[in-house]
Amino acid sequence: MSETPDSAVRTYIENHRAAFLQDLAEWLRIPSVSAQPDHAEDVRRSAEWLAGRLKETGFPTAEVWQTPGAPAVFAEWPSGDPHAPTVLVYGHHDVQPAAREDGWHTDPFEPVLQENRLYARGAADDKGQVFFHTLGVRAHLAATGRTAPAVNLKLLIEGEEESGSPHFRELIETHKDRIAADAVIVSDTGMWSKDTPTVCTGMRGLAECEIVLHGPDQDIHSGSFGGAVPNPATEIARLVAALHDENGHVAIPGFYEGITELTDQERELLAELPFDEESWLRTAKSHATHGEAGYSTLERVWARPTAEVNGIGGGYQGAGSKTIIPSSALVKLSFRLVAGQDLDHVEQAVRAWAAATVPAGIRHTVTFSPGTRPCLTPLDHPALRSVARAMGRAFEQPIRFTREGGSGPAADLQDVLAAPVLFLGISIPSDGWHAPNEKVEIDLLLKGVETTAYLWGDLAENWRDAR
Amino acid sequence: MSETPDSAVRTYIENHRAAFLQDLAEWLRIPSVSAQPDHAEDVRRSAEWLAGRLKETGFPTAEVWQTPGAPAVFAEWPSGDPHAPTVLVYGHHDVQPAAREDGWHTDPFEPVLQENRLYARGAADDKGQVFFHTLGVRAHLAATGRTAPAVNLKLLIEGEEESGSPHFRELIETHKDRIAADAVIVSDTGMWSKDTPTVCTGMRGLAECEIVLHGPDQDIHSGSFGGAVPNPATEIARLVAALHDENGHVAIPGFYEGITELTDQERELLAELPFDEESWLRTAKSHATHGEAGYSTLERVWARPTAEVNGIGGGYQGAGSKTIIPSSALVKLSFRLVAGQDLDHVEQAVRAWAAATVPAGIRHTVTFSPGTRPCLTPLDHPALRSVARAMGRAFEQPIRFTREGGSGPAADLQDVLAAPVLFLGISIPSDGWHAPNEKVEIDLLLKGVETTAYLWGDLAENWRDAR
Repeated sequence: MSETPDSAVRTYIENHRAAFLQDLAEWLRIPSVSAQPDHAEDVRRSAEWLAGRLKETGFPTAEVWQTPGAPAVFAEWPSGDPHAPTVLVYGHHDVQPAAREDGWHTDPFEPVLQENRLYARGAADDKGQVFFHTLGVRAHLAATGRTAPAVNLKLLIEGEEESGSPHFRELIETHKDRIAADAVIVSDTGMWSKDTPTVCTGMRGLAECEIVLHGPDQDIHSGSFGGAVPNPATEIARLVAALHDENGHVAIPGFYEGITELTDQERELLAELPFDEESWLRTAKSHATHGEAGYSTLERVWARPTAEVNGIGGGYQGAGSKTIIPSSALVKLSFRLVAGQDLDHVEQAVRAWAAATVPAGIRHTVTFSPGTRPCLTPLDHPALRSVARAMGRAFEQPIRFTREGGSGPAADLQDVLAAPVLFLGISIPSDGWHAPNEKVEIDLLLKGVETTAYLWGDLAENWRDAR
Repeated sequence: MSETPDSAVRTYIENHRAAFLQDLAEWLRIPSVSAQPDHAEDVRRSAEWLAGRLKETGFPTAEVWQTPGAPAVFAEWPSGDPHAPTVLVYGHHDVQPAAREDGWHTDPFEPVLQENRLYARGAADDKGQVFFHTLGVRAHLAATGRTAPAVNLKLLIEGEEESGSPHFRELIETHKDRIAADAVIVSDTGMWSKDTPTVCTGMRGLAECEIVLHGPDQDIHSGSFGGAVPNPATEIARLVAALHDENGHVAIPGFYEGITELTDQERELLAELPFDEESWLRTAKSHATHGEAGYSTLERVWARPTAEVNGIGGGYQGAGSKTIIPSSALVKLSFRLVAGQDLDHVEQAVRAWAAATVPAGIRHTVTFSPGTRPCLTPLDHPALRSVARAMGRAFEQPIRFTREGGSGPAADLQDVLAAPVLFLGISIPSDGWHAPNEKVEIDLLLKGVETTAYLWGDLAENWRDAR
């Protein structure tokens, strides 16, 4: 068999596999838990370690960027080709807390290789998925004979993702010019399963609010006044009950305005995924599916906007009973948004709906938290096609498409950089993110390496002069 | 002016007024706070004091009855007339907690007479209203020349009313034979106002339950699963929203079954009360009236059954937000019941309604607490007519009729003794029950004395052979 570009990549990866895993294990030994103040020094060490390793990889620039919290790492490797597109890879080097007594079979910060899996906190989320980019770019250079990547390659690896990215927006606005890119590649997600490699095409946005209803000026006796004054706990329930119509559509006027509907092609592609409802329900720890009429479960969680109650409360909730009409009641609502929905418009629609729904005699307040915009890359976007093609070569099978129901800082990058966001993740649901015994499958990790080894050449070839 | 029976009573009361107030003050000095364990000895002392005073009043029998908690006092004075009806007076000798620093202008347990008002904890609730029976029966004897009351007079004065009467039902069941009566007179309520003396004809009953809805086996991520599984917080809200129809009627099938509707006469009598909605709303600390269509505010709180939310809760209620679908949610409901409604039937109706309303995929539990039956004495009941007549003589004006929206142990007496319950109270809303600076109006207190001085003779005359 003659040497093809792909076999050259594979040979390179095979030859460097042991050293790659050894290096990753070294990084995983640093307990960079951003949520725990006593690990602040470890998070700093993790950033320094990564910056050093990126320099060794060949990035001419690799810097630690301070924030008011934990530091991020930025690296840049220009292509040299004035027509090359610029790509920014996003990931994070901090990890979730982990302790042996949480149910880990081994020390979470002492990586263990077993049955072709690497067990350690951060193996999948997200150090493993950040790290495959280092060997990936080297394999790309080795297989193509280049001395610099075919794209202008930038990496931004934050240190506070597991703490809610409190300074991320500020960080990327501050460094907007340096991180400018034609596309963002997020390597902090997963794929459908080991046998079904997928590319995620978007995430839902998120608008969150608290609505408080105020009735009597204090809790009053339900015997003396019950039946004759408005009860804020009853009214908060009526408000929530009015959130959806009988078909499960969100009933807030204007909520769906501007929405990018699923295309027939996308619906067909989603329907091709080997979805097993029973297994999905087990993962959801739920006992039934329920939602908007006319949509499948995957469409409901990935591609439809929702209104969910995250919390409701008012009056007496302790043991036994208390015969009061409570003075106030609250509900915490979150709205998942899809492409085309505007955060400000949704907020105004919710405010108008609440004002129109709450009855006389009840005062209400609506407080919104800062929201997260949805992101979605069209199926025919050239960069998305490159990612799918590169992944298809690595996995040697067709790549299917998914979306993500959650929301994340990726949307901030899309927003600040005005660039499409693509998702390249090789983690699978059983990897145990945030759970004990987190692991990454070595075969998939190396498919990640291989995908990026093809991706930069594909992008440069098919998406020149992107800006 | 010649000596009428009424002027004889008034003369007697006037002559004994000073000693009566002095005795009452002595009793009020005993801080019989049943809710505070360090006052247990005071509650015991209060019972002993009352039993002693009832003996001095002339009751041949006056006993302290022990309970697993605070003691009650029972006294009995047979009429001697085999045709005389038997009346049991109910009241309580324990009081609410009180401390100078709560806002009292004077020591709550050092009675102060000021502007014809007696200020002290328990002055109105309930020592004053128990105590008017002592001078009342003496005035009755003095004015009629009798040596024993015209009715078989019994008093049961409990010591745990302010602690929720935990042993009352057991107490009255144990002593059922000794407290047997043709009618119960409850002197632990009030009247409309100083200028509008009233008799209460009934109290609402109370059924209380907690409904818990269980969705996913644990809180789950609203991004990953939102929009596709049933949310117990949303469903508890829908359940509560389904409690009432658009006219404010309780929408639980069978809820109104058996109800004794207000008669036209009762509605007319209630409408005659000088009701001022603005002032009522100030008392309710509420900003609007709201309730069942077709009924006035007074009818809604006194004579219509209700379904009220006393508490609702589920999911995250703290500061900020948490993107979860909660595992469970609960609501605490109380149903006020009116005459004709059956506690067991209401419980079954609520259970059936919940089972029919909660959707698939949500497990629910319904837990009822022991309920309180409603009580209502018909307007044409001979004992009620006697009370109204006696009160009319004392107040020298027509007596109007009210009801009470709350629920109380009176219903247990009605239940165990199978006797009608009548309410004879002279307290007014401004007396400050449970509040600082509780007081009783001396003029009204003496009208209570005078009412009972007429009542026993009137009852004996108009309601012979009652049993």
